[in-house]
Amino acid sequence: MFSFSVEARSGRARAGRLVTPHGALDTPAFMPVGTAGAVKAVTVGDLREVGAQVLLANTYHLMLRPGDELVAALGGLHGFTPWPGPWLTDSGGYQVMSLARLRTLDENGVTFRSHLDGAAHVLTPERSMQVQMNLGADVIVAFDECPTLPAPREVVAAAAERTTRWAERSRRAHHRADQWLFGVVQGGVDPDLRERSAREIVALGFPGHAVGGLAVGEAKPDTMRVVAQMDGLLPEEKPRYLMGVGTPEDLVEAVARGVDLFDCVLPTRNARNGQLFTREGRLSIRNARYRADPRPPDPGCRCRRARARAAPICATCTWRGRCRRPR
Amino acid sequence: MFSFSVEARSGRARAGRLVTPHGALDTPAFMPVGTAGAVKAVTVGDLREVGAQVLLANTYHLMLRPGDELVAALGGLHGFTPWPGPWLTDSGGYQVMSLARLRTLDENGVTFRSHLDGAAHVLTPERSMQVQMNLGADVIVAFDECPTLPAPREVVAAAAERTTRWAERSRRAHHRADQWLFGVVQGGVDPDLRERSAREIVALGFPGHAVGGLAVGEAKPDTMRVVAQMDGLLPEEKPRYLMGVGTPEDLVEAVARGVDLFDCVLPTRNARNGQLFTREGRLSIRNARYRADPRPPDPGCRCRRARARAAPICATCTWRGRCRRPR
Repeated sequence: MFSFSVEARSGRARAGRLVTPHGALDTPAFMPVGTAGAVKAVTVGDLREVGAQVLLANTYHLMLRPGDELVAALGGLHGFTPWPGPWLTDSGGYQVMSLARLRTLDENGVTFRSHLDGAAHVLTPERSMQVQMNLGADVIVAFDECPTLPAPREVVAAAAERTTRWAERSRRAHHRADQWLFGVVQGGVDPDLRERSAREIVALGFPGHAVGGLAVGEAKPDTMRVVAQMDGLLPEEKPRYLMGVGTPEDLVEAVARGVDLFDCVLPTRNARNGQLFTREGRLSIRNARYRADPRPPDPGCRCRRARARAAPICATCTWRGRCRRPR
Repeated sequence: MFSFSVEARSGRARAGRLVTPHGALDTPAFMPVGTAGAVKAVTVGDLREVGAQVLLANTYHLMLRPGDELVAALGGLHGFTPWPGPWLTDSGGYQVMSLARLRTLDENGVTFRSHLDGAAHVLTPERSMQVQMNLGADVIVAFDECPTLPAPREVVAAAAERTTRWAERSRRAHHRADQWLFGVVQGGVDPDLRERSAREIVALGFPGHAVGGLAVGEAKPDTMRVVAQMDGLLPEEKPRYLMGVGTPEDLVEAVARGVDLFDCVLPTRNARNGQLFTREGRLSIRNARYRADPRPPDPGCRCRRARARAAPICATCTWRGRCRRPR
């Protein structure tokens, strides 16, 4: 039902294939973020057209609205959404700390109020697993504590230690054979804490590993130093997922350091705000200089419009492109 | 470059074919409204998939933003937008009365301030033709005065008479051989005024006719009575366009009375607000009863999701549907 194989290498970079119950995907792979089951403003057809192979949904958002039990009643994410391929859900640990109101965190978990309606909720390792089993993603993630950086060493250390204990509880609470549960490494940008966290999480025997606690405020060289360190600590034969990364440059840098999976809201959130990534750098399409500029944002663009203009004219409907109208 | 032919009849209903410089279309045809060059929230690919053959853009909106001269500099609507097929623009007469601020109307035209930034503008028959020639739609519409109903008979009569004079000025001001200019019949729901307006407009020799001044507040039986009256007054061999109509039922009723072309914001505006048209009537998808209902809104739905679920599984990527990934 599940497998992962590294099929080729170049330096530390790996090309692999991850097989899930809802399809196989080639790695390295970027996972667009479908927050509550849909990637904002992008259709499933568009996602497939740009080569998306797997989507990420947020446990925190879905448990609050529409509720994980309703998603389960509708057949899980694969029944609730039109995306037929693999899904991954995160643990909810990051969002509950960044979005929820009146949070209190203790060894049991996080007590909070919904940012939507103020309703009281508790998110624990057991509850995160229950929610993620209800959502039914192919790959799910152990509940972790993710401190924003910079943070005092003792805060980062305590979060990493708690993440290990929560990983054990997550593993015990998870019961679906058709889901792969990934453990999360924490430890901020401290080499000793990272190494200890990685050894503890790897020892728990998860089928794959997520690297958390990066892209949360630290300097870019620190990010890539930690990613390179992870390459030496995580088992070669299991997939590695760098959470919340990132820019096109970050993806290339992290792939060169042995990462297989990524997720980030950046491409879709930026696009909604008129910030485009091109081969020549970022471009703000709302800039006045583009008002009367007919060129595509990227000179090498092979976008839908360019393709449509190059298509042959249909003899039946006299339009360019594939004819919809047999006569 | 242009032609229109009635190819079959059933009662008063006609099936025709309208050929334009940017493609042919089968009538009766509904024109989705692409207000400022785009149909809100619907891609060109989606439009073609649902069978759209021709789009309508609003002269009023485009002259204000981004401005008709910029659209002309970018190649007209066919350069400014990715829609490769026929475009139609309206005269701006309806929008300037319903949207603009500080309007004053006299024989010359309408002086107004933009609803966007308060800038002063004048819209006359000559200016409407200039704007519509800059926009470069395949079919354009003479500048008309469209009173909202109910209105006193003398107001409706004066508007219809002015519409005839403005139609003559529009015809004189129009100089593009690659555009068809349609005349507009006004006259409210008064049979005498409608007949006089129709005879005057038809006498001007336009290649097609628009029926304006309906769906502006009158009772539904009055609408269809006027449409039936138009069928007896407008030449059989020229296309008839019922402006601003309408609901699915209205389309069927008007087709049965000899109408060939329609436009309305209804389907897309309603959809954006969660109001769906189904074979069993209207459905408000935000109604709480649908929260946990997994059925498609229409029992006979052959939508993208239903088709995707029925597609065969690809052996390469193990997904349902057309494979993007040759290996």
